[in-house]
Amino acid sequence: MSDQETELKFLRDQIDSIDQQIHALLNDRARCAQSVAEVKERYQGDREAVFYRPEREAQVLRRVMQRNDGPLADHEVARLFREIMSVCLALEKPMHVAFLGPEGTFTQQAASKHFGHSAHCIPFSTNDEVFREVESGGAHYGVVPIESSSEGVVTHTLDLFKRFNLKICGEVELRIHHHVLRAAEEGLDNITRIYLPQQTLSQCRSWLDTHFLAAERILVSSNAEAARMAIQHGTEAVAIASDLVADLYQLNIVARNIDDQSDNSTRYLIIGDQDVGESGHDKTSILVTVPDKAGALYELLQHFHQHKISLTGIETRPASPESPHSVFYIDFEGHAANQHIQNVLQELQSDTVELKLLGSYPVAVL
Amino acid sequence: MSDQETELKFLRDQIDSIDQQIHALLNDRARCAQSVAEVKERYQGDREAVFYRPEREAQVLRRVMQRNDGPLADHEVARLFREIMSVCLALEKPMHVAFLGPEGTFTQQAASKHFGHSAHCIPFSTNDEVFREVESGGAHYGVVPIESSSEGVVTHTLDLFKRFNLKICGEVELRIHHHVLRAAEEGLDNITRIYLPQQTLSQCRSWLDTHFLAAERILVSSNAEAARMAIQHGTEAVAIASDLVADLYQLNIVARNIDDQSDNSTRYLIIGDQDVGESGHDKTSILVTVPDKAGALYELLQHFHQHKISLTGIETRPASPESPHSVFYIDFEGHAANQHIQNVLQELQSDTVELKLLGSYPVAVL
Repeated sequence: MSDQETELKFLRDQIDSIDQQIHALLNDRARCAQSVAEVKERYQGDREAVFYRPEREAQVLRRVMQRNDGPLADHEVARLFREIMSVCLALEKPMHVAFLGPEGTFTQQAASKHFGHSAHCIPFSTNDEVFREVESGGAHYGVVPIESSSEGVVTHTLDLFKRFNLKICGEVELRIHHHVLRAAEEGLDNITRIYLPQQTLSQCRSWLDTHFLAAERILVSSNAEAARMAIQHGTEAVAIASDLVADLYQLNIVARNIDDQSDNSTRYLIIGDQDVGESGHDKTSILVTVPDKAGALYELLQHFHQHKISLTGIETRPASPESPHSVFYIDFEGHAANQHIQNVLQELQSDTVELKLLGSYPVAVL
Repeated sequence: MSDQETELKFLRDQIDSIDQQIHALLNDRARCAQSVAEVKERYQGDREAVFYRPEREAQVLRRVMQRNDGPLADHEVARLFREIMSVCLALEKPMHVAFLGPEGTFTQQAASKHFGHSAHCIPFSTNDEVFREVESGGAHYGVVPIESSSEGVVTHTLDLFKRFNLKICGEVELRIHHHVLRAAEEGLDNITRIYLPQQTLSQCRSWLDTHFLAAERILVSSNAEAARMAIQHGTEAVAIASDLVADLYQLNIVARNIDDQSDNSTRYLIIGDQDVGESGHDKTSILVTVPDKAGALYELLQHFHQHKISLTGIETRPASPESPHSVFYIDFEGHAANQHIQNVLQELQSDTVELKLLGSYPVAVL
């Protein structure tokens, strides 16, 4: 054996011994998960036991990221634990998750990111069908984008909470940011051709309309393909794609984050019929209907300001055309089980025509 | 705390302690992997060090499956180790893998199954481009189906080995089997409507033509959608989908494995420019050109028979139209580094116009 072989053999024997220990611990963990299921079923009586606890998973993942001191990156090791929990959960009860399809979309990525690859994820053609499948009990959870342009028209997912009696059980964030990539040149001058896939076009349309209304837009099958076409087609061509693609093809990023702000398709909601407990870092979403008068929104927001509660998102939703009311979707920090939040919700109640609590759930960990 | 809460807390504390141990071991493993990379680079001199060793990964996964005694299923725990190796490898060197796109196809699934989710997988529109990308060094490996109907015409991947100087470094199997699913009825009588996606149609066309030429075929976006449509559209409707879908929608399987035998799209090849060492359970692929005369194939196969070597696959490939030769693609058990196999290859050499060794590689583990 050469010196190199001896050194490698020593290291590989070490890896094998580590793998054996990891393996034994994985099965130990699975046995504990089985015992958890057993305890839950024993005490549950007639009600169906709840095996998936989003708040508990969020806590586990946060702890993993906190205590991690490398060399593995925090998000990589958290992803491994997500898969480990997914495998253990599948042993207790195989999870069925409905998502807005077709397969291969970002929503499927979001579903796998949140539930791991042991969950059975089933595509549905519309958000409406995803909600219906979860409400009927056909799927345990659903994954929907907050807003999606994949169906031709923008479907306002939030409006579906008015029609379906479902809750938000979690959120997933996919960090998809689009940039303008260029091979030879720096800067945004002399761009005549833009290569990009359909989905990217719908996510960056306003920015492109503002900056490059005249340039030819050529639709291709993927962002990687766009990069390759831009390289082939000379100095006046650019591609719209992510950091990863820029890196792979060694292209210059000549404009960053051109995604339209109004399109929050990088955030996805987990819907279900479960009340999620406190995880220690939670968010609450509500849908409020207020009289359509000047200052209504301001009054609403004052309550949050007075209680020092941070709003994380607000969106105006149309009420029915003949209605004299406005509807707002509001996200804020905190859990509805918390007394502090309960006080605000009570105050809001007296100021609004209707207040619907959509759910409290852990802030996205990964 | 209630009794249930006490019991659950005890179990969860146990899980947390197990997680801490797994976490520490994962980082230990990553450190070992870094040392492996260091050793390789130190001894490599000017040549580029090879970080990914398919034979070594296959051995690790086989050991995992052999020693596994549950409760986790063999394939689940092997999948976790695949991800662990993927994460550790990404730390040594981020892997770039080209695959036949678009995203969301089975080929992408095959790529993730083989390289784990830490590899950067990049879609290409044709097999040709995948080969070119790997040959030029733009990607470390490529993943291509043996045969694919996704490009409209059947592209014979195998023919590309004549044009590109690349090797087979591994194989991936996806177990995708299609069945005929029916809601109310048993048996194959009175079927007038068949719901299925385009891709499934191309994989099951001969069977459907033979058995249900007259039935209406309705293309839908996914196999799950097909099942839902079949349920909605009464007793004369069926869906073509997998076990998983049958299970999810509680449909009867009235005919099993209707996939056309000629379409091996459930097997994928890993291509690269690397000679893969012995893993202990390997396969070798060759491309042989023989004079186009009666008995040529028989003579060829005799060599394998005499040496008691099992053939795992054989396929006739057209030579150029004016050529007086026949070309065969042959897969058999064993590794070309093995003396036994070398003897056969030598014998074959004398009987053939040309013999191209495409590679020896580990038999698919998962």
